Amino acid sequence: MADYIEPLQNLAEQFARLQGVGKKSAFRMAFSVVEMDMSDAVAFASAIMEAKEKIHKCPICGNLTDEEICYICDDDTRDKSVICVVEDVKAVMSIEKVREYRGVYHVLHGVISPVNGMTPDKISFRELIERVGKDDVKEVIIATNPTPDGEVTAMYISKYLKPLGVKVTRLAYGIPVGSDLEYADEVTLGRAIEGRRDV
Amino acid sequence: MADYIEPLQNLAEQFARLQGVGKKSAFRMAFSVVEMDMSDAVAFASAIMEAKEKIHKCPICGNLTDEEICYICDDDTRDKSVICVVEDVKAVMSIEKVREYRGVYHVLHGVISPVNGMTPDKISFRELIERVGKDDVKEVIIATNPTPDGEVTAMYISKYLKPLGVKVTRLAYGIPVGSDLEYADEVTLGRAIEGRRDV
Repeated sequence: MADYIEPLQNLAEQFARLQGVGKKSAFRMAFSVVEMDMSDAVAFASAIMEAKEKIHKCPICGNLTDEEICYICDDDTRDKSVICVVEDVKAVMSIEKVREYRGVYHVLHGVISPVNGMTPDKISFRELIERVGKDDVKEVIIATNPTPDGEVTAMYISKYLKPLGVKVTRLAYGIPVGSDLEYADEVTLGRAIEGRRDV
Repeated sequence: MADYIEPLQNLAEQFARLQGVGKKSAFRMAFSVVEMDMSDAVAFASAIMEAKEKIHKCPICGNLTDEEICYICDDDTRDKSVICVVEDVKAVMSIEKVREYRGVYHVLHGVISPVNGMTPDKISFRELIERVGKDDVKEVIIATNPTPDGEVTAMYISKYLKPLGVKVTRLAYGIPVGSDLEYADEVTLGRAIEGRRDV
């Protein structure tokens, strides 16, 4: 690979810096660019710059937006008294796809993970506390991922929120719909039994 | 997804046009770009334009280069009387990695595939015949992929080359080194038996 022509090598390295892109895929993508029409390459490069220039965090919730505030915070039909706390913007997209949640969000942009140097001041935690204290918030749904770091973050946040007199909830754990009990791991199954409901 | 902010959507669509990139990966990459520093985004966009502007096909062999002719054709120690015919530039990289082949290449930029409208005039076939007729070529190694289209292309090329009095060879088929016979498919195993050699 080191033998290869420099502009191609350089472009492949740029692709390899993106999350989840390996060396081989990076080269394949670089070849795709070389095979593109010039106008497509220009459109690609422009899209990168435009995304970078126009997109910023919503000053209210931290979601990404190209407007002053994000389209969710800007939507009068959304219930501002319910805040769903998520790790990243991708989680907002996932929950929005369900089309069931009508509250607003708070994007932490990370999780607390002391091992990785992620202390509460590195994520949007203080902003959440301020927001809950200031606005008329009734419920905070903590929707961090069901990972050890996500759990720690959820516990930490709820500890600070409860004294503010707000209802704090966490997404339900259980067996995924459409899956087979045979393939559920023991922890998930244990949580599903623990969280069983009347029918 | 259609709900999502336009510059991000647009960038994800650009990524999705690259070979082998799905919708989900495209969004993940677009997010990576948004999370980059501005200087990295500029470097990324510039790398795309630079690759596109500087890289062109070598006028001799069709390999990609940012010089007048590619570094292989430009190398005096390479044996110009042996030409290895490949489908694409990636195949050149694969063979070069072995560091065993000392001849030169001819990149077809495609394979003959009438079903897909790929007729011999759509690939660099005429250029190969001209090159063999003009230069002092002793052997042409056909290294198209062992797929139906690759086979058809190999047969077609050899039919035209043999009358020119040049030795035409094809890469050996057989079981991959380090693999297990148990996992070899029947066709490969059949070819391996057919091509057996004295030890």
